[in-house]
Amino acid sequence: MVLVNGTADGALSATDRGLAYGDGVFRTLAVRDGHAVAWVRQYAKLQRDCLALRIACPPEPELRDDLARVASAQRECAVKIIVTRGEGRRGYAVPEKPARPLRIVIPYPFPDYPHDYARRGVVIRRCALRLGSQPALAGIKHLNRLENVLARMEWADPQIAEGLLLDHADNVIGGTMTNLFIVEGNVLATPDLVQCGVAGVTRERVMEAAAAHGVSCRVESFGLERVKAAQEVFLVNSLIGVWPVRRFEDSVWRAGKLSTAVRRWLDEKNT
Amino acid sequence: MVLVNGTADGALSATDRGLAYGDGVFRTLAVRDGHAVAWVRQYAKLQRDCLALRIACPPEPELRDDLARVASAQRECAVKIIVTRGEGRRGYAVPEKPARPLRIVIPYPFPDYPHDYARRGVVIRRCALRLGSQPALAGIKHLNRLENVLARMEWADPQIAEGLLLDHADNVIGGTMTNLFIVEGNVLATPDLVQCGVAGVTRERVMEAAAAHGVSCRVESFGLERVKAAQEVFLVNSLIGVWPVRRFEDSVWRAGKLSTAVRRWLDEKNT
Repeated sequence: MVLVNGTADGALSATDRGLAYGDGVFRTLAVRDGHAVAWVRQYAKLQRDCLALRIACPPEPELRDDLARVASAQRECAVKIIVTRGEGRRGYAVPEKPARPLRIVIPYPFPDYPHDYARRGVVIRRCALRLGSQPALAGIKHLNRLENVLARMEWADPQIAEGLLLDHADNVIGGTMTNLFIVEGNVLATPDLVQCGVAGVTRERVMEAAAAHGVSCRVESFGLERVKAAQEVFLVNSLIGVWPVRRFEDSVWRAGKLSTAVRRWLDEKNT
Repeated sequence: MVLVNGTADGALSATDRGLAYGDGVFRTLAVRDGHAVAWVRQYAKLQRDCLALRIACPPEPELRDDLARVASAQRECAVKIIVTRGEGRRGYAVPEKPARPLRIVIPYPFPDYPHDYARRGVVIRRCALRLGSQPALAGIKHLNRLENVLARMEWADPQIAEGLLLDHADNVIGGTMTNLFIVEGNVLATPDLVQCGVAGVTRERVMEAAAAHGVSCRVESFGLERVKAAQEVFLVNSLIGVWPVRRFEDSVWRAGKLSTAVRRWLDEKNT
């Protein structure tokens, strides 16, 4: 059941600005036992992203209602929420009287990643594509995702779970669909996302959980050397939770203490 | 009459990758007296852009047929063609068996720009937003156009017809919806678009027409000083044709000889 502005299998206009320009934002979240995990935080991020593009964010009760309908039919699923600026005239200019933003809620089967991924860890690769710098859009989960699509096209080997993306200055930004953390001593570090990348909700949850457990996390720019030299490397997003990295090029790791602790912290505090 | 895969007012799936990721390309072209202007060239560019994203371009006869149907109803209009990768599973990875690409043909009333714009010229401004560098996408008219949307949001003054976009290295790239040419002596120059920007069909037509008339055109990187010091500055796209620039910040021009000649060349050779 796909909900378009609350209507089951509702129609989507071919002139919607979400399609024309990628003029919108989205969220992907886990529904567990009929409940949207970390919903308050997910909605807050949706609101911030809408604000950044000056799109009127749909009221929380509308989306909560959509989610409840979807989750009552599929109690374990992945849900994608898309909010676009709505229909527009032709041309980039935003209509003076903006159309009603469009909200779409789509349930998908929960992705069946191998169990191994979360326990033993994943093998990752380096993507050739470099992310462009755009401070005006960095951090936002907007609908302009061709860089991610092109990067994901670089490999087909099912043994490789994720690809690392760098910017033009050789900074590591994250995976194609994940945020990255490295462990150095008892300290976490995660890439600064002011130039590019998506600042995901799970990244935020990890940083808060770490702080609550007395583990500090640096948000800073770093290159592949720091990743390779780290004691642990792990990837996060709302669907996978935490994936320790077990191999990246010539570097090999075992699932480490902090990666395991972070996964437990996320499971314990489901918000 | 909007055609979705050839069906009038056909439905668009909420799970289309064009919406999810901006995973597609588009064209905007003029229909004059029932004929799509420079169609052979427009289709060739659509093909190149599809190829760059590894999307199977719809066969020319299908699109030509769509266009003929739309143009028989509206003999003078602007037509937007969108081609997306089609429906996909959730996630950036392109399905191994790709879905049928989606083609959408949308007629719009021909934009009613003031007549003055083509004859006397337009006033333009500088956009604060800087285009990010992405060689993998530069030149392609893809559906990831948030930079253009944000840049166009910077002004509301109807006296200002277009905004100039620069990259992070202070190179002029073009307008939000136009390509830029400057005249220096009897030579044209237009920005190099290997890092960002859209290489439009009319830009290509201008370069070929200039060559045919013994006027050389340099494709190179240059900054605002070159624009301000130029004898003429003009903007082009498939709907406006040629707009001479008459004012940009402290620089003022009269519609010049070469701008006028270029407009005539485009009108004479409608391909």
